[in-house]
Amino acid sequence: MTVTASDGRMFDDVLAVEEPLEIRLGFPDGKRRAVSITMRTPGDDAELAAGFLFTEGIIKAPEQIKQIRHCGLKIGMQKGTLDRAAALNSNTIRVDLADASAVDLKKLERHFYTTSSCGVCGKSSIEALRTEAKQIADSGLRVSADLIHSLPNKLRESQDVFDRTGGLHASALFDSDGRLDIVREDVGRHNALDKVIGRKFLDGEVPLGERVLLVSGRASFELVQKALVAGIPILAAVGAPSSLAVELAREYGMTLAGFVRDGRFNVYCGGERILANG
Amino acid sequence: MTVTASDGRMFDDVLAVEEPLEIRLGFPDGKRRAVSITMRTPGDDAELAAGFLFTEGIIKAPEQIKQIRHCGLKIGMQKGTLDRAAALNSNTIRVDLADASAVDLKKLERHFYTTSSCGVCGKSSIEALRTEAKQIADSGLRVSADLIHSLPNKLRESQDVFDRTGGLHASALFDSDGRLDIVREDVGRHNALDKVIGRKFLDGEVPLGERVLLVSGRASFELVQKALVAGIPILAAVGAPSSLAVELAREYGMTLAGFVRDGRFNVYCGGERILANG
Repeated sequence: MTVTASDGRMFDDVLAVEEPLEIRLGFPDGKRRAVSITMRTPGDDAELAAGFLFTEGIIKAPEQIKQIRHCGLKIGMQKGTLDRAAALNSNTIRVDLADASAVDLKKLERHFYTTSSCGVCGKSSIEALRTEAKQIADSGLRVSADLIHSLPNKLRESQDVFDRTGGLHASALFDSDGRLDIVREDVGRHNALDKVIGRKFLDGEVPLGERVLLVSGRASFELVQKALVAGIPILAAVGAPSSLAVELAREYGMTLAGFVRDGRFNVYCGGERILANG
Repeated sequence: MTVTASDGRMFDDVLAVEEPLEIRLGFPDGKRRAVSITMRTPGDDAELAAGFLFTEGIIKAPEQIKQIRHCGLKIGMQKGTLDRAAALNSNTIRVDLADASAVDLKKLERHFYTTSSCGVCGKSSIEALRTEAKQIADSGLRVSADLIHSLPNKLRESQDVFDRTGGLHASALFDSDGRLDIVREDVGRHNALDKVIGRKFLDGEVPLGERVLLVSGRASFELVQKALVAGIPILAAVGAPSSLAVELAREYGMTLAGFVRDGRFNVYCGGERILANG
């Protein structure tokens, strides 16, 4: 679009695309249920939907999914990238379940909780926020501090859009040698991570015990929780972690590094997985 | 907390506090209903709850609120800051309504939509996302480009925590002379804005036709929508706007400036409210 700079010049600017996506579940008996609306950058919507359902604890295995369709438009689940052009045409996606019995509908209540007594129930909906996190099994993964230092530049080199719009968050997985495995971008940082995890989930590759996750911004509770569900042992963030992110990561045995930039970083917990150089 | 830097030094680091807040409505007949759980930085919870209910279109006027209580703890609605120490003690807050008939419960469905047919209904829940935005009445507010340039430094000087943790978003209102009116910080940018608007809502000062809003990060659809509900004519963002943020701002007559930093900014729409210097 044409934009006016403060010095009066007009120029073309590229904006990060933000559109709503409604994620729905389709049950074998024909019933349908809306689960979430998220503001996302179109593309990789099937991965986003699958990643969301998995990291929120609603589904556990890719076999539970029969197919994923945009409304009126079928999206294949084959390996590799989905059809971005087609995905741009719809803001509603439906995940049809192969077997409804295995779906944890209670987890949906995190997103609905239509009724709740106040100050009465012992286990509140707030506590339900963290129930899906799992202890990280120690896969033996160890990486050097230099590897951690190298991640932000590798992410930046791989990003399609970030440098042009300045408006997208990124999540990327790296292997134990620091090679980039997968990167996804989105206006929502939780969406970028759901897209990454959703791709791996659909490919049958979770838990991701041999991967290092880099996120381009801050590390929130929500990002740590999603990474824990996917079994990722090391989370590195370019930005700051929150108090609850550190608390959750420590409780479940994840390594959390923050402020990974300008040749330095801080380790908040799980430092045994990061080896000094030399 | 004690943190290890990548060069091996140990030091004390200050983290941005993130905790869940459950917002509940209390009806005059004694019924209660959970509305939302948000991950927020404790403090100003009553303002956050009021701002959330107002900007989501659930309540329209401060008179609809009888009182706002943390569970087991009463928070006054007097002018000025609330008791931060007391607010830290509870992660559940209840907004008791004076009159339930005026509450738009349909708007709650944006947060619940427990049932939804797929591809059938004409007005989808996605469309409901934008129904609460209102056309900005032109209050005649005009500001200079220099005033816009000056805002980020004023915000930074006023921030309590940002420079120490690097983990908080901020929202601030300025008057037409560029004087800081109110600033709030939070791990969630929508929360920081809800806290600002909530304070003004409780004080009976909305619509905010004479105020300029500065947000420390990116301008999303959600932030533009909240600002529109509060009648704020100018939104300036230190970061990039999204495509839908620009679309919504333009549609409703708001001025949207982005990348306000390093002595420059871009105007995406509503440029008539920003006057060239000189």
